[in-house]
Amino acid sequence: MPLYLREADVEALLSPADAVEAVEGCFARLARGAVENRSRFRLGIEEGLMHVMAAADLELGVAGLKTYVGFRNGARYVVALFAADRPELLALIDADRLGQLRTGAASAVAARHLARPGARTLGVIGTGWQAESQVACIRAALPGIERVVAYSRTEERLKDFCRRFGAEPAEYNRDAAEADIVVTITSSRDPVLRGEWLEPGALVLREGGEGIAHRSSIVRPLPPP
Amino acid sequence: MPLYLREADVEALLSPADAVEAVEGCFARLARGAVENRSRFRLGIEEGLMHVMAAADLELGVAGLKTYVGFRNGARYVVALFAADRPELLALIDADRLGQLRTGAASAVAARHLARPGARTLGVIGTGWQAESQVACIRAALPGIERVVAYSRTEERLKDFCRRFGAEPAEYNRDAAEADIVVTITSSRDPVLRGEWLEPGALVLREGGEGIAHRSSIVRPLPPP
Repeated sequence: MPLYLREADVEALLSPADAVEAVEGCFARLARGAVENRSRFRLGIEEGLMHVMAAADLELGVAGLKTYVGFRNGARYVVALFAADRPELLALIDADRLGQLRTGAASAVAARHLARPGARTLGVIGTGWQAESQVACIRAALPGIERVVAYSRTEERLKDFCRRFGAEPAEYNRDAAEADIVVTITSSRDPVLRGEWLEPGALVLREGGEGIAHRSSIVRPLPPP
Repeated sequence: MPLYLREADVEALLSPADAVEAVEGCFARLARGAVENRSRFRLGIEEGLMHVMAAADLELGVAGLKTYVGFRNGARYVVALFAADRPELLALIDADRLGQLRTGAASAVAARHLARPGARTLGVIGTGWQAESQVACIRAALPGIERVVAYSRTEERLKDFCRRFGAEPAEYNRDAAEADIVVTITSSRDPVLRGEWLEPGALVLREGGEGIAHRSSIVRPLPPP
């Protein structure tokens, strides 16, 4: 039987700092043309979707895919990892924590390269499962971050998040937007951030939205004229 | 951990007759529009290919995929099967034997519906791994088959195949072509079958070819004018 890594194994084996290094290495290999990364595709299932994301990394010598089913009340993720040079299934990996760290690490790599030098404050709008790795990974990538300010519509959740991640609770989302790096990570369908709140040179990282699908984009406000 | 079925489990649990019923049921659900079956896609890896085939079957209430890496010297296959109505990974399944039976079962379903009534002879050109389930599944689907004639370029392999599957060895491929149902299942790049050898009303099932990829098609010779 192939190696099977459960959620608890991934949690124990993969630190936010390692995730950041791994994702940064992926981006570099993608840029060098060593990686073939297929667009995600989806199949409709009852009240949900099945997703498939496949890639081959010829520098790492692996090929594989992540597949999962997502519903309103949860999702189940698994990664299958093959050797790229011989008929071997290297591992099957529960991939909820893995995907959470990958999402946070992608933001952290962006922050490392795009945030203004000397960035010291991080604002987070949204305090769910995906927000946790945003804070952990960005902190791992940028040790200069001294202050994290978080905002959530749910007071209980905000309190808990701040306690666990050493963040300061923001009374309004605007308070979390006045930072060197601002992460929005919420499934809210209403706008949570206004451009006029941002300080010149701030980096904005957008994650989540659109129900169960994630997407990232980076907005860099122009310096004042 | 999800249920993991190894090759030996599949071998023990899935008979050729059950495979034929399962595949025939799939075809019926496909025809009813209850199944979404995505085209296989491939990624290039070192000296081989990674393949992904995903589908959702809303009548069975499952969704999943088969993925594998294939090289000149072998392949490694795995199936991931999810529930279609809740976030649950039902099983991971080693899928070499499963694919072998699925391929044989597809031929058997075709033979059940397209072979001439009262078909009694089966000719097989090619005696490799995939040929075994062709014979087993077609026999399971058509109990009227009394005689199996097999041809292989490799004498040793032919002898072994005939012993194991109760087939008669053909001296020339033409001898295996004079049957009610003719299966070609070989990686030969040269033609192995001539139309003029076929008897009117014979059913031809073509499998394999093109390196590691399989494809099936059915040729039905016209009755004489």
